[in-house]
Amino acid sequence: MHVPSSIANQSDTARVHDGASVAASAMLGDFVVAYAGADVGEQCRVLGFTQLWPGVRLEAGAELGPGVTFEAPLPGEHAAIVVGPQARVGAGALICRGVRLGLGAVVTAGAVVTQDVPPHAVVSGSPARITDYVRNDTGAPAMAWHQRATFPQEPSVVPLGVGGVTLHRFKFLQDPRGDLSVGEFDREIPFLPKRYFLVMNVPSDKTRGEHAHRQCHQFLVCVKGSCAVVVDDLDQRCEVQLDSPDLGVYLPPMTWGIQYKYSSDAVLLVFASDYYAADDYIRDYDQFVAEKRTAISQEQA
Amino acid sequence: MHVPSSIANQSDTARVHDGASVAASAMLGDFVVAYAGADVGEQCRVLGFTQLWPGVRLEAGAELGPGVTFEAPLPGEHAAIVVGPQARVGAGALICRGVRLGLGAVVTAGAVVTQDVPPHAVVSGSPARITDYVRNDTGAPAMAWHQRATFPQEPSVVPLGVGGVTLHRFKFLQDPRGDLSVGEFDREIPFLPKRYFLVMNVPSDKTRGEHAHRQCHQFLVCVKGSCAVVVDDLDQRCEVQLDSPDLGVYLPPMTWGIQYKYSSDAVLLVFASDYYAADDYIRDYDQFVAEKRTAISQEQA
Amino acid sequence: MHVPSSIANQSDTARVHDGASVAASAMLGDFVVAYAGADVGEQCRVLGFTQLWPGVRLEAGAELGPGVTFEAPLPGEHAAIVVGPQARVGAGALICRGVRLGLGAVVTAGAVVTQDVPPHAVVSGSPARITDYVRNDTGAPAMAWHQRATFPQEPSVVPLGVGGVTLHRFKFLQDPRGDLSVGEFDREIPFLPKRYFLVMNVPSDKTRGEHAHRQCHQFLVCVKGSCAVVVDDLDQRCEVQLDSPDLGVYLPPMTWGIQYKYSSDAVLLVFASDYYAADDYIRDYDQFVAEKRTAISQEQA
Amino acid sequence: MHVPSSIANQSDTARVHDGASVAASAMLGDFVVAYAGADVGEQCRVLGFTQLWPGVRLEAGAELGPGVTFEAPLPGEHAAIVVGPQARVGAGALICRGVRLGLGAVVTAGAVVTQDVPPHAVVSGSPARITDYVRNDTGAPAMAWHQRATFPQEPSVVPLGVGGVTLHRFKFLQDPRGDLSVGEFDREIPFLPKRYFLVMNVPSDKTRGEHAHRQCHQFLVCVKGSCAVVVDDLDQRCEVQLDSPDLGVYLPPMTWGIQYKYSSDAVLLVFASDYYAADDYIRDYDQFVAEKRTAISQEQA
Amino acid sequence: MHVPSSIANQSDTARVHDGASVAASAMLGDFVVAYAGADVGEQCRVLGFTQLWPGVRLEAGAELGPGVTFEAPLPGEHAAIVVGPQARVGAGALICRGVRLGLGAVVTAGAVVTQDVPPHAVVSGSPARITDYVRNDTGAPAMAWHQRATFPQEPSVVPLGVGGVTLHRFKFLQDPRGDLSVGEFDREIPFLPKRYFLVMNVPSDKTRGEHAHRQCHQFLVCVKGSCAVVVDDLDQRCEVQLDSPDLGVYLPPMTWGIQYKYSSDAVLLVFASDYYAADDYIRDYDQFVAEKRTAISQEQA
Amino acid sequence: MHVPSSIANQSDTARVHDGASVAASAMLGDFVVAYAGADVGEQCRVLGFTQLWPGVRLEAGAELGPGVTFEAPLPGEHAAIVVGPQARVGAGALICRGVRLGLGAVVTAGAVVTQDVPPHAVVSGSPARITDYVRNDTGAPAMAWHQRATFPQEPSVVPLGVGGVTLHRFKFLQDPRGDLSVGEFDREIPFLPKRYFLVMNVPSDKTRGEHAHRQCHQFLVCVKGSCAVVVDDLDQRCEVQLDSPDLGVYLPPMTWGIQYKYSSDAVLLVFASDYYAADDYIRDYDQFVAEKRTAISQEQA
Repeated sequence: MHVPSSIANQSDTARVHDGASVAASAMLGDFVVAYAGADVGEQCRVLGFTQLWPGVRLEAGAELGPGVTFEAPLPGEHAAIVVGPQARVGAGALICRGVRLGLGAVVTAGAVVTQDVPPHAVVSGSPARITDYVRNDTGAPAMAWHQRATFPQEPSVVPLGVGGVTLHRFKFLQDPRGDLSVGEFDREIPFLPKRYFLVMNVPSDKTRGEHAHRQCHQFLVCVKGSCAVVVDDLDQRCEVQLDSPDLGVYLPPMTWGIQYKYSSDAVLLVFASDYYAADDYIRDYDQFVAEKRTAISQEQA
Repeated sequence: MHVPSSIANQSDTARVHDGASVAASAMLGDFVVAYAGADVGEQCRVLGFTQLWPGVRLEAGAELGPGVTFEAPLPGEHAAIVVGPQARVGAGALICRGVRLGLGAVVTAGAVVTQDVPPHAVVSGSPARITDYVRNDTGAPAMAWHQRATFPQEPSVVPLGVGGVTLHRFKFLQDPRGDLSVGEFDREIPFLPKRYFLVMNVPSDKTRGEHAHRQCHQFLVCVKGSCAVVVDDLDQRCEVQLDSPDLGVYLPPMTWGIQYKYSSDAVLLVFASDYYAADDYIRDYDQFVAEKRTAISQEQA
Repeated sequence: MHVPSSIANQSDTARVHDGASVAASAMLGDFVVAYAGADVGEQCRVLGFTQLWPGVRLEAGAELGPGVTFEAPLPGEHAAIVVGPQARVGAGALICRGVRLGLGAVVTAGAVVTQDVPPHAVVSGSPARITDYVRNDTGAPAMAWHQRATFPQEPSVVPLGVGGVTLHRFKFLQDPRGDLSVGEFDREIPFLPKRYFLVMNVPSDKTRGEHAHRQCHQFLVCVKGSCAVVVDDLDQRCEVQLDSPDLGVYLPPMTWGIQYKYSSDAVLLVFASDYYAADDYIRDYDQFVAEKRTAISQEQA
Repeated sequence: MHVPSSIANQSDTARVHDGASVAASAMLGDFVVAYAGADVGEQCRVLGFTQLWPGVRLEAGAELGPGVTFEAPLPGEHAAIVVGPQARVGAGALICRGVRLGLGAVVTAGAVVTQDVPPHAVVSGSPARITDYVRNDTGAPAMAWHQRATFPQEPSVVPLGVGGVTLHRFKFLQDPRGDLSVGEFDREIPFLPKRYFLVMNVPSDKTRGEHAHRQCHQFLVCVKGSCAVVVDDLDQRCEVQLDSPDLGVYLPPMTWGIQYKYSSDAVLLVFASDYYAADDYIRDYDQFVAEKRTAISQEQA
Repeated sequence: MHVPSSIANQSDTARVHDGASVAASAMLGDFVVAYAGADVGEQCRVLGFTQLWPGVRLEAGAELGPGVTFEAPLPGEHAAIVVGPQARVGAGALICRGVRLGLGAVVTAGAVVTQDVPPHAVVSGSPARITDYVRNDTGAPAMAWHQRATFPQEPSVVPLGVGGVTLHRFKFLQDPRGDLSVGEFDREIPFLPKRYFLVMNVPSDKTRGEHAHRQCHQFLVCVKGSCAVVVDDLDQRCEVQLDSPDLGVYLPPMTWGIQYKYSSDAVLLVFASDYYAADDYIRDYDQFVAEKRTAISQEQA
Repeated sequence: MHVPSSIANQSDTARVHDGASVAASAMLGDFVVAYAGADVGEQCRVLGFTQLWPGVRLEAGAELGPGVTFEAPLPGEHAAIVVGPQARVGAGALICRGVRLGLGAVVTAGAVVTQDVPPHAVVSGSPARITDYVRNDTGAPAMAWHQRATFPQEPSVVPLGVGGVTLHRFKFLQDPRGDLSVGEFDREIPFLPKRYFLVMNVPSDKTRGEHAHRQCHQFLVCVKGSCAVVVDDLDQRCEVQLDSPDLGVYLPPMTWGIQYKYSSDAVLLVFASDYYAADDYIRDYDQFVAEKRTAISQEQA
């Protein structure tokens, strides 16, 4: 954001109380107040009219538009609000007590955030819901894949540009007595399944998945209704809309996967190359970042 | 049917024209007319007020209630109507030109039959639709399984009493964020799949399947909506209603299978133990009867 | 029905077997057959092409159009079909085994009757459903009230012409916060209730009520959706459609009442002047006829 | 229909009473009875088991399948049933008292006909509904236009092959803010309207139109939902499905028009070139036949 | 709320203009401005960034989170906004001109309040709607009754813990011909009704009731759909969901009652023990508080 | 708005940076900041807690309630937000980057404005949608016509008080075979049409029309569903709801017209007196203002 020079790096109307921690490279705009126990990281920017309560922590590179309000702490407690690294909060947004915004998350202007926001997610509205993910450092939307590339109409396999993830179109036979979609394992789908599961009755505002597998391959088909699948290899994210039973997405191991925007009638069919093993799951994104970086550096070594 | 002795075996008001073929053991009631080219098999019974046109053939053991009407043939043709062995046609029913009723088929009173009726099927209404199948020689309904046995509520496997066919209840996890149903291959499901297919958009009055496999094992799950599955090992038939995504039916090779009564939103998921092979399919019921009998006699030998 | 003199009283093509009972005043048309065990009462008329099986009984004054088919009896049994006094069966109708048609019932042409038909009811279709009642000896429809009289639009009370039954229109106040309908007991409604009950989820092809009270007064309001109410004082029947929450019907004691044609969302609210008393109910129509006649003669004495 | 020689032209089981009129070229099959007052025209065929009551009239060339039932007349009356010239009644059909089947009408097997059938219409079911019209003497269906010709996708005008009737596709502009369809009078539509009317809330089993105008031009657009339009210039009939608001049909004067198969939400918009004038309407088909023939002969002269 | 000591009781950035009335025990946070004509009661707390206009009155114990905005007054007028005793307004909320928040009302963070909020009600969203009530001084939700107690499944009467209010489960008879629910006056329902009324077509965001009766008893049954009923005896509040026609709530005189959360198809049936009498209604909550307290003290005396 | 004298014309807590342009007659309230590149016109009022970024322009007479937030500009750019003459922005509203509010537009309190707002429109909600228009300088709502006047129930013509615009009620004939509505050109509708068009599938939050014709007359009928029509003759605006197929609105030339609030099933039929001519359209409101004023002055001369 461009800010007039008169208010950088710290406006003379801003106030930093004793006991507040504000990094030297941070910028505080007009009428910003940092109370004891607030913590503002390097390169953060707070544009104006914001009270940073005890327990509010802005991590490095976080940006807050004008008029952002944090809910005040309860008596004898800290507000315990965290704005993650590189997260951006739009003008006039409200962040409730106890909320944590993940790495690179985006809150659009005017949103009322009552729940945690996952890394790279974009939220908007009141109460705020996830509407998209951020593709990469350019800030482009992950759901823009449909604009960037041609959806295959004929049976074929298309890489999504995120690690080894592929999008599959299968044969679909239309018939007055009923339609038929067919897929073959070890031929079209690159493994033999040991397990399948069906996901259904997912509320439209819920997000599922949010994990990676260390060893297990997965293949997703939305056999009824529709849902959106976001895949993430650390470097890139991509969102595809599965809205036809002859579309599938293949997730190799060490791919972070998210499913959301389920239609009310959606049934998601998942094939897995292995039986269930609890220790194959990575459910913490920081842990995924760490293991994926190790894996990449080993590949490159 | 009980018939007063006064009209057996052939009423004096019945008329058999030259060129008609009527078996000695057949019974023709009052005002029945058999024209040249009609063919009435052994043990057939025709209760009254019926014209048997050229090209109408009643096979052994067929029974017709009173007031059954056959559509008359077109000029220069035969009616080409076949009532299969042991088939039963109810009072006041109408059978259209060209229709073939299969072995043991049942037409309820007043039905208007405009299409072929598969072996052992029960049809009713105008136009007539399949509403059930006949379980076995007792004439009991195949869909009575739900009355005869307890549907498993816990994860388990239940034999249906038709060859090696089994009904499976899987784990079903209810969760506010979406429900989950899981099945494991080579453990709960007795094979590893090479292929899956999805059947959907089946009109409610259509019947699918109607074939057996020589080698391939199949497993059926109705992942959305509901449908009915009829299984047939020649000796017995059974119908189960698949109306929950955690229910499945296993069909071993040499099982005749039928699916119908699809709800408008139904999606049927089928796993197959082999890739598609045209010569593994038996699509003609008579052929199935022949091969199955051979197989049974070889087993018994 | 007018029948050419050439076929009255018994056509030379009709046949009466030994053991059949046919009243002298009965008329049998062309190609009618009465088997041993059939019973045809006084003044009955059977127009043609009908087989009267063992166990078929036509009571006095019953009339059958041409081409009526009775389902044949099962082996060793009687058909056990009864056509009640003055009942009329239309051309081409089919009557299934075991069915009883009540006093004055009407089967329209082509109907397929699979269930008993109550006294004075009119049925049609395949399978046959009740569509109306017969008003009185003229054969006029009971539901013709809406054609005979003006439905009250303003709050008022209108006699239905059946004993002391009255139709009530109440005040209906429309308000942006919700509409309001008000009725007052002992003022608009001629009694203080002791009991209320709600009837709902009635399938559209079902009939309820079918009883009279000896002492109890009733008041019916269809508070949601719609239904039809038939009232019967022995001499007259009348049907009104209750399709608005500001309409009500008052039934004094010794009124036979029936409700049917419920819309899928209908909720019928009934007020009763007395607590439940099993011996206040008359559920058998013949019993109602007897008691009502006694009551009338006592009144007149 | 092919009939065995043994029953032509009149079976020995058929009976013709004194006072019945049966043409020499007519054919009566087994157990057909013609009572006094019945009238059977030249070249008629009645296949069997039918009672022809007083007042039943089969006009020249009418054909009845086996087991057709006519409702019997009321006392002192005639049945007043007319089967028009070249009309065909299928096996097991039932024709109610007072019904008139028009010229060339077709009743399918098993239908229960309770209402008049217009000329050239095809009816089926119970109660019978119009499902199609007969195109011309070949007996081909009028609704086959969609199979015979390509529906215009671009704005254009296509003759339907029935007099001067034309089918119009208009411009249709899709826009996220709302779609737009445009038609121009005196340019695309060949007249300036004096009147428009809207037809809506038509039950799906009702038929509208059934008239011709002497002077007035009409133009029909189904702006919501869909309906079918049948046009008839005496020589040919054609049915088109109007299922899009950018489709229209132009009817010049002296065109017989019918609309039916309304969807529940259908709104039909009609433009007329003249103000309402009662004497411009021809509502009787015979009258239309007469005036149209006069007009054609005058044109040719 | 916990506030850093540096801003209590009045921040040096807060401004109190001449003519403003601020109680000594009130706390004003950073950048709070009180203009002439504003009135801040004892123990009030205003956390920051709020303009208190002429005509804004915060009653004793009211609390405002950070960033609360009051709409400014029209020219020549006062804002006439009242925040009632002990009311709480969440962070970032907006209170429109003329709004009155009742005793103990709660506005959640980010809400936009455009209408008065009744005593003890909880509102949220934009525009703010009532979502709950506060049970008592503990701040617990009134709708938690379903968590605190077991809903009766068998016919019975359960006290709700609010004065003499009782919840009734009636007999419910399920029958394939229609379900039946029965309630008896003067037995199950503790009075004989003089009046009934039906409430329907209530928009889902509307609240009804909001009054008490001095003499009249009431009984509420939701005969279709569902609604929520809140009852209040001054000391306690309780909310029950009426979602079945066999549930009812009895309100004795001097009970404050509210109904809301109507489903779109809801029909609420109310019985009243008296005819309508305007002076029996208490529609002002303060008046209810006064009369109820008098009544209680008289009982205790 | 009434503002205490202590803050007019410029509060001592307000700050105007070098390079900001603030008119002498403008009023800036407490804690308002105008940065270099902001532009505040004559008679503007900004009540408090607002940052006026580079590129924010308030035109003459614009008014901003307290707590209005403008989205900050992107680096190296201006915010490019324009608040048009006499526009009013309610308390706590948020205006996004790049938005332009038209002449006299109204943003209600708490709205989140993400799109341009047309002249005289009223927007509210998050995101903000048009809910009304302003009738005239009194600020009264345009949609209040329904409160000011009686909608005609009988066929008739009613002037709307905006130039020569008239509202028409037509004959509506209900018929069991379908309802009929009739309108006559050159009689009831004051012109002969040259063109018609149908508007449908308009999302409920979209606005159409927004233009005037120089020569062409128009007539609007909503033949299915409903929509609102706003007419504007510069001096006055009026909104009517068309929700019945027998209602129409006549727009003479030089009338600005807008349609919105379409129900999901709405089909709007428009008749025009001329063929399409691009140069007959005035699509820019400023242009309309200029031409209309010229026309009025010529009339008056």
